[in-house]
Amino acid sequence: MEELKYFDFFRNRSTLRKYSATKEVSDETLSALLEAASHAPTTGNMQLYSVVATRDPKMKERLAPLHFNQPTVKGCSVMLTFCADLNRFERWCEERNAKPGFDNFHSFITALIDTSLFAQQFVTLAELNGIGSCYLGTVTYNAEAIAEVLELPERVVPVICLTVGYPEDGVFPAASDRLPVQGILHEEVYHPYKSSDIDDIYGPKEELEESRRFVEENGKETLAQVFTDVRYPGKMNKEVSESFSRLIKKKGF
Amino acid sequence: MEELKYFDFFRNRSTLRKYSATKEVSDETLSALLEAASHAPTTGNMQLYSVVATRDPKMKERLAPLHFNQPTVKGCSVMLTFCADLNRFERWCEERNAKPGFDNFHSFITALIDTSLFAQQFVTLAELNGIGSCYLGTVTYNAEAIAEVLELPERVVPVICLTVGYPEDGVFPAASDRLPVQGILHEEVYHPYKSSDIDDIYGPKEELEESRRFVEENGKETLAQVFTDVRYPGKMNKEVSESFSRLIKKKGF
Repeated sequence: MEELKYFDFFRNRSTLRKYSATKEVSDETLSALLEAASHAPTTGNMQLYSVVATRDPKMKERLAPLHFNQPTVKGCSVMLTFCADLNRFERWCEERNAKPGFDNFHSFITALIDTSLFAQQFVTLAELNGIGSCYLGTVTYNAEAIAEVLELPERVVPVICLTVGYPEDGVFPAASDRLPVQGILHEEVYHPYKSSDIDDIYGPKEELEESRRFVEENGKETLAQVFTDVRYPGKMNKEVSESFSRLIKKKGF
Repeated sequence: MEELKYFDFFRNRSTLRKYSATKEVSDETLSALLEAASHAPTTGNMQLYSVVATRDPKMKERLAPLHFNQPTVKGCSVMLTFCADLNRFERWCEERNAKPGFDNFHSFITALIDTSLFAQQFVTLAELNGIGSCYLGTVTYNAEAIAEVLELPERVVPVICLTVGYPEDGVFPAASDRLPVQGILHEEVYHPYKSSDIDDIYGPKEELEESRRFVEENGKETLAQVFTDVRYPGKMNKEVSESFSRLIKKKGF
């Protein structure tokens, strides 16, 4: 096999949470990154998304607690809230004597996928230009409050949030671990995971020094328990499910 | 502003629907692309996705009608169905004395975003290596039947489908149009679209030769009507919403 170009770059990329306090991502750079990223694939070329950029310290002040005061919010050059957006497309339809029918769950899912592809295209192009970012999962935890702060209208739901900036010292963190690709790829049909498969797939991750420390610090028996009991407990997942579902309905899907 | 590296590459990328009949994407290349792409950002480093690869002509034969017999299905080197997957992670939890709580809507949404970022990372790395792809939106239209053909178990839902291959003649199609970036970017808060904004944003698209032909061929008055009446009518969106919601519930979310 020929060696893949950019394999090492993609293989070694990493999330950046701490940014330079002096080197800003300019409006021109942001705009150019978004323009090129908008050529990511999009359903029927509809581009069912919008981005709200936060630079104003007062706005960051309001948004920070909604992201559990992660320091990356106030420390970034710009924060981007990517929204699944059927509003603009509907406005176009209304202005053009067309009757839109996007007030449903599937239209939201379509917009969510469009938005995700666009966001990741932005992230990759930014990284190729030495600009780092960090996805904030908290955006869906407090989506309703975030939607209010950002004044999102009907048919617009925040789904992805990124903090963006240059690295403090020009250097990105080391890449984090991933499961072996054989663990995620199925040939022709899905092959159920046997106990021994699970050991093969998750064993190397469990052996990492970082994982062992994680288990110990949280007073748990296994790494999996850190995920189920501390990081993503069922009760919390259910609560977020309810609030996020409520917002989707409230925004007209 | 310094010129962005890779701006032109991202700006000019395009979807590829027709593939070389002689040059295949090898298993080694596919595996390497997926490995590097798996370093895309993922929630809590959980990698809540799986990929089912389809090469067997008999499997393509079964899947083709579920994708409305788009020729790209049988014509591709390999078809990839990306699935939101909490099954593997749960299996790990069960094997490690941890009680998973992922049987809810938000866990599905988290997995869907994880899956989308991973898929797009794959697409971009493939394109950087001269390999093209095409997203098939039909995957969510017939998700239930596709899940059966691919033998997807509980907590696994197909959300993205790509056909993949080298271009027939080594050349990708021209890039398609996109809205001006000012039309999708909001500063600090969401600014509602006025009629004149809609004209500015969608006007250039409506003026395209391709758009005019599209309107004429479909016997419509406006381009927007082609979207609302022909391509994505409300009745169809609602039906797909119901079937896709049913599948998500059936798969335990």
